[in-house]
Amino acid sequence: MRMVDLIEKKRDGLELTKEEIGFVIKGYTEGSIPDYQMSAFAMAVYFKNMTDEERAALTLAMVESGDQINLSGIKGIKVDKHSTGGVGDTTTLVLAPLVASVGVPVAKMSGRGLGHTGGTIDKLESVRGFSVEMSSNKFIELVNNNKVAVVGQSGNLTPADKKLYALRDVTATVNSIPLIASSIMSKKIASGADAIVLDVKTGAGAFMKELRQAEELAKAMVDIGNNLGRNTIAIISDMSQPLGFAIGNALEVKEAIETLKGNGPQDLLELCIALGSHMVVLAGQSNTLDEAKQLLENAIKSGKALETFKTFLSAQGGDSSVVDDVSKLPTAKYKIDVLAKQSGYISNIIADKIGVAAMILGAGRATKDSNIDLAVGIELRKKIGDYVEEGEALVTLHSNKENIGDCINRVYESYTTSTEKINNPTLIYKEIR
Amino acid sequence: MRMVDLIEKKRDGLELTKEEIGFVIKGYTEGSIPDYQMSAFAMAVYFKNMTDEERAALTLAMVESGDQINLSGIKGIKVDKHSTGGVGDTTTLVLAPLVASVGVPVAKMSGRGLGHTGGTIDKLESVRGFSVEMSSNKFIELVNNNKVAVVGQSGNLTPADKKLYALRDVTATVNSIPLIASSIMSKKIASGADAIVLDVKTGAGAFMKELRQAEELAKAMVDIGNNLGRNTIAIISDMSQPLGFAIGNALEVKEAIETLKGNGPQDLLELCIALGSHMVVLAGQSNTLDEAKQLLENAIKSGKALETFKTFLSAQGGDSSVVDDVSKLPTAKYKIDVLAKQSGYISNIIADKIGVAAMILGAGRATKDSNIDLAVGIELRKKIGDYVEEGEALVTLHSNKENIGDCINRVYESYTTSTEKINNPTLIYKEIR
Repeated sequence: MRMVDLIEKKRDGLELTKEEIGFVIKGYTEGSIPDYQMSAFAMAVYFKNMTDEERAALTLAMVESGDQINLSGIKGIKVDKHSTGGVGDTTTLVLAPLVASVGVPVAKMSGRGLGHTGGTIDKLESVRGFSVEMSSNKFIELVNNNKVAVVGQSGNLTPADKKLYALRDVTATVNSIPLIASSIMSKKIASGADAIVLDVKTGAGAFMKELRQAEELAKAMVDIGNNLGRNTIAIISDMSQPLGFAIGNALEVKEAIETLKGNGPQDLLELCIALGSHMVVLAGQSNTLDEAKQLLENAIKSGKALETFKTFLSAQGGDSSVVDDVSKLPTAKYKIDVLAKQSGYISNIIADKIGVAAMILGAGRATKDSNIDLAVGIELRKKIGDYVEEGEALVTLHSNKENIGDCINRVYESYTTSTEKINNPTLIYKEIR
Repeated sequence: MRMVDLIEKKRDGLELTKEEIGFVIKGYTEGSIPDYQMSAFAMAVYFKNMTDEERAALTLAMVESGDQINLSGIKGIKVDKHSTGGVGDTTTLVLAPLVASVGVPVAKMSGRGLGHTGGTIDKLESVRGFSVEMSSNKFIELVNNNKVAVVGQSGNLTPADKKLYALRDVTATVNSIPLIASSIMSKKIASGADAIVLDVKTGAGAFMKELRQAEELAKAMVDIGNNLGRNTIAIISDMSQPLGFAIGNALEVKEAIETLKGNGPQDLLELCIALGSHMVVLAGQSNTLDEAKQLLENAIKSGKALETFKTFLSAQGGDSSVVDDVSKLPTAKYKIDVLAKQSGYISNIIADKIGVAAMILGAGRATKDSNIDLAVGIELRKKIGDYVEEGEALVTLHSNKENIGDCINRVYESYTTSTEKINNPTLIYKEIR
């Protein structure tokens, strides 16, 4: 087999066999296929797409390019959740204890954030003492005991994907459905998931701006999962504005705690219940979505979900008393309200612009080596559809810096007001299974 | 400017500016743009094509990537001829002395062959003593004195093209009209041509199998030439069978001598007169093609063309007495007729298959370092439309090897006979200007 022939085959729109795709990925991982052939191949895929079978084969080849996490020591069906990323997305912090509290094992492998806001690990480290460093035996033991644990990424997972992703980033081949879908799904499968719930974001703040694109990506990932024997479903949810009110690490932990107490933002709660219900059903803890939803709502009402969160934090060395006293979380030196310059209905909040504003405060990393400030961030005071009076706060900035002119400008650039009444945007557009 | 943005721009079908294309080619030549970005760019060009302006800019950027030959010391308009390559193409050997004999300066820079048969230099080296090694001053002096000289390629011409061509070869991006056209035209322009006559081959033995493709390539090259101030015209000629009868270096020199004497194969003569007429007109030696044709036919009849060939050979150290006694050219030890297995009309001769058969005898180089045997080759005895009796010779092999079974098999595989009468194929399909 020669790589040049396989590039040509894909260029001409023909379907590659499982063996051919295996050859490409193995060769690329090992270095026998150079970057310049792989980038031409990726561009050919960009233009000619891949069939369902090719996508599954590509995903599997990337899974097999590195280590695979063995979660067989954990009792029950391990359901993983993945979000395609958004701004102020606190769902994981809420979902993990919530579904664990009704018996779904949550064995979460997570990373640190790059860009807009921190990753799940960064957020959890707002809780004093909390650590994700542990042996895999300890991790499995914790999940078996408490139904939930979060561990830092370790091992050499999907090296083919890492290498290919870095290449795509500099060769204008990121935006290809089969390549995005196989990249995400290979990581989930290599991490040991038995079943997968996907939260595909759409709207101005998401990678997939258009619903049609989001649907296509969701369908691609669901097909790959199901083709490879992992029950997979996707929800397409709105990211035309940030989810919830909090953007920033400790702020999001606080918001998650409020949500688990039943006092969280409506949109965050609704999305968590929707995603969680699917997780519960896929894990076999309920037969119907309605039943699962009931279970989750009861777990919040009864305090069981909150209790599970406390247990989870303690088990990983965290000070679980923050749950009862959120003032123990890191807090910023300054709280600055950014005031509306005119009255009207909020018609638009550009989520990624607000995300960058939060990053500038220190809530996210501009580069891999940037330091993150867990205390800082942005609290939205108005969301789409809300009425704001001139001089009322649009957002509250939580900052440890005084020089925040750039951040304030970006907040103003994010918000648009309208004199006409605006409806709340739809939160959940579709389910794809 | 960032290369990734320019790849994306081309990927999305937008037109690049002259400056952007200059940035790409300069960066790639210098190494600041890596192969993996260039191959993704080439694949994007493959799918999205280039406008006339982009093609001209690309060609010029490649010309400017290296040395440019200065032929200003040569009096008159320097017209270069280029063929897109075929099997047994003896046109340059005939054309150079033919048009020189009517006053067109021919300053030919040539290379050695790779693949089917030798290049022009290999062929000329069949003449004992002939050398293409000389200073550029000597080269210019010879052209001014004799109107014709051939020199080996020197200097660092179009390094961007060399680098890009090697990359395209292994990334399935060879077959792209803008990339092929700019590659050819950049070499011609860097070699100092004032005007260019192109012989674009089509048919089974050519790179462009279909007339439509050949037309597209011809038009692309003519447009580039004219856009860059070089009068350019193209002829689309047949390569559904080899041109003339000879395939192999000394055999082709002999055929060229016969043609200059007026005894050559009809198709070779006709194509040389057609290409030559355009060269004469572009050089300003005639006002009309008819007048030019007349001049050239007279030059053959009067022996002036043959005399120019002799002068040319002597001036470069060659034994010009071969012109009067072709038996002084290298001859092979064995002449083996390959006999027709059945009677009928020749309906097809797969030119590149016959070319490979000649290469196997030693007439061409399989790799850059292969040795070439100037004496060997294949003499066609029947061409398309000819009637052959069972047992009559299809070709005569000129070989220094005894073990030629593979070669004979390929000859049989090349020839097809039909019981129905077959017309001669059209030799010249079109002129593109």
